[in-house]
Amino acid sequence: MADTVRLAVIPGDGIGQEVTVEALKVLSAVLDGSGTQVATTEYDLGARLYHRTGETLPDSVLEEVRGHDAILLGAVGDPSVPSGVLERGLLLKLRFALDHYVNLRPSKLFPGVATPLAAPGEIDFVVVREGTEGPYVGNGGALRVGTPHEIATEVSVNTAFGVERVVRDAFARATARPRRKLTLVHKHNVLVHAGHLWRRTVEAVGAEFPDVAVDYLHVDAATIFLVTDPARFDVIVTDNLFGDILTDLAAAVTGGIGLAASGNVNPDRTAPSMFEPVHGSAPDIAGKQLADPTAAVLSVALLLEHLGHTDAAARVDAAVTSDLSRRAAGEVGQRSTSEVGDALAAAVS
Amino acid sequence: MADTVRLAVIPGDGIGQEVTVEALKVLSAVLDGSGTQVATTEYDLGARLYHRTGETLPDSVLEEVRGHDAILLGAVGDPSVPSGVLERGLLLKLRFALDHYVNLRPSKLFPGVATPLAAPGEIDFVVVREGTEGPYVGNGGALRVGTPHEIATEVSVNTAFGVERVVRDAFARATARPRRKLTLVHKHNVLVHAGHLWRRTVEAVGAEFPDVAVDYLHVDAATIFLVTDPARFDVIVTDNLFGDILTDLAAAVTGGIGLAASGNVNPDRTAPSMFEPVHGSAPDIAGKQLADPTAAVLSVALLLEHLGHTDAAARVDAAVTSDLSRRAAGEVGQRSTSEVGDALAAAVS
Ligand SMILES: CC(C)[C@H](C(=O)O)[C@@H](O)C(=O)O
Ligand SMILES: CC(C)[C@H](C(=O)O)[C@@H](O)C(=O)O
Repeated sequence: MADTVRLAVIPGDGIGQEVTVEALKVLSAVLDGSGTQVATTEYDLGARLYHRTGETLPDSVLEEVRGHDAILLGAVGDPSVPSGVLERGLLLKLRFALDHYVNLRPSKLFPGVATPLAAPGEIDFVVVREGTEGPYVGNGGALRVGTPHEIATEVSVNTAFGVERVVRDAFARATARPRRKLTLVHKHNVLVHAGHLWRRTVEAVGAEFPDVAVDYLHVDAATIFLVTDPARFDVIVTDNLFGDILTDLAAAVTGGIGLAASGNVNPDRTAPSMFEPVHGSAPDIAGKQLADPTAAVLSVALLLEHLGHTDAAARVDAAVTSDLSRRAAGEVGQRSTSEVGDALAAAVS
Repeated sequence: MADTVRLAVIPGDGIGQEVTVEALKVLSAVLDGSGTQVATTEYDLGARLYHRTGETLPDSVLEEVRGHDAILLGAVGDPSVPSGVLERGLLLKLRFALDHYVNLRPSKLFPGVATPLAAPGEIDFVVVREGTEGPYVGNGGALRVGTPHEIATEVSVNTAFGVERVVRDAFARATARPRRKLTLVHKHNVLVHAGHLWRRTVEAVGAEFPDVAVDYLHVDAATIFLVTDPARFDVIVTDNLFGDILTDLAAAVTGGIGLAASGNVNPDRTAPSMFEPVHGSAPDIAGKQLADPTAAVLSVALLLEHLGHTDAAARVDAAVTSDLSRRAAGEVGQRSTSEVGDALAAAVS
């Protein structure tokens, strides 16, 4: 464990700015007195840089970021920038360049948290979303754009190499959890080539994890179970796009994307992993201190866990759990973004 | 309106067999005395034919089916057949060959029906799912299968021709509905080529429908609203794969796929349209008279509507509505598939 954590901070756009401040507040509070220092370098990437220079992630910045132990990201995206520019040019570029092949998204219904489900049951699962392949690779194109003969394609690329490593990671996580269950989600009855690669890979890797019970759901059926019986899930492993869809739905049933954390993990540690709330930049409420920083704070817990600061991670989790209980009990009223951050920072100190 | 409706019937696999019998029962009951006859031709397609001959949809059968006014399909798929064979070789082949470019999937919460949502609100929307393009085209492939160097691709193909015609159909439906609202669902911040084609098309066609309010959601965000505020939706237009996912979720929040009907519509009437429940063949409960035939019966209502028998369609809908209310009121106990069919047939007579 390094004495100093070198942390690259990318607040990004909209509420990303506000929630990142709170996440950092909690991070220094929880490490205060532990002997571990945090040295942050902030990178002003996102809509502002794009408008100033036309750049999204200059190569030199990417190389600097690479020199850190981890990255904390707020949110990316702004209506003033054409759709896809910041997403592809900044967020996905980081995920791909730093080989974040495990996009880790825990879904847990904290005690007392309001859910849209009438009978949610005990929800506590984790989605291991592949992060560097699938329809996210950017291998699409368009011909005769703007004419009646336009054709636009998007290519989902899936490799044995890419699928096996994420499936292996998911099995390792499943075997370390009490229920030891892994569900592959895909659509192999339609996307037969990619689907069969995923299926065969799960079968092959599964043979090395005989204590893990494996099942399979088509993505459409998985959305049904996420609202009728989410408690059935333990570890879900799935492709980049299906994982994107399922984790927003999972966040919704566990109290909303205001609470959903994620880690873009490079398990081989050949580059820093990146932690970010699942929510977006929410331009409609940005700058108003209305955003809930809890998802960003829980992303800090994932970051601490990844860096081996297991105790500190558990303290952050516990602080969030008790803050959410206090909300449920009506013990706290409407609070600003920074008031929530202050409360969580105080709780972990 | 023809005096005789020539109906091709494909019961298919599993519970498809059972629910189709009931759907036909209701169809003849509602047309009884109307002067309109139904002449059915049954085609034994699915797992049995495949095991007997290795065929899924022989060309000669496809040509025969083409000569009908409409098609009623039960369900397709069986665990004894490799995944994708019947789906691609029969169901999707029909949808593509008969140019079913509008895959119409209404979602309505009938009074009294149990939903997993705590506060569902008034749910009544229709998903217009594109049916002949997207990642369903089968333009994928695999290289070095079974080796560590395997690569599998799936190509989503989207054309101006294909997108415009389904978007136009969706706008026409939206303008005929009281709320006149259309939501495009895609993921144009990642799938930029396809997404921007969809977006530009909605913008261009929307200019011809100034009375329709248009909005846009990324597919991941759409799944959130489907559980937190499904009442916000009126008409959703979306691509083939997103439509597949959203309509299973929509079915779940409106009481389950036991109630979800669909029409694979060829609006130009260059080939017969095909009506089928959204649910699959459910091999686990097949042959036990446990399946709810309501989705198949509601598909008959869509079929009648499509053929211009608006009154008969409304009577089928009303029969289902009152049957569901009677269930909610506890006035009917556990019934077999055929008992539900009998009750609905009696109600429309
Ligand atoms: C902003 C967008 C590119 C991103 C994604 O699709 O991965 C987001 O939805 C997420 O889930 O992190
Ligand atoms: C069986 C399968 C090929 C089909 C689809 O994906 O379209 C089904 O899920 C549906 O929604 O009708």
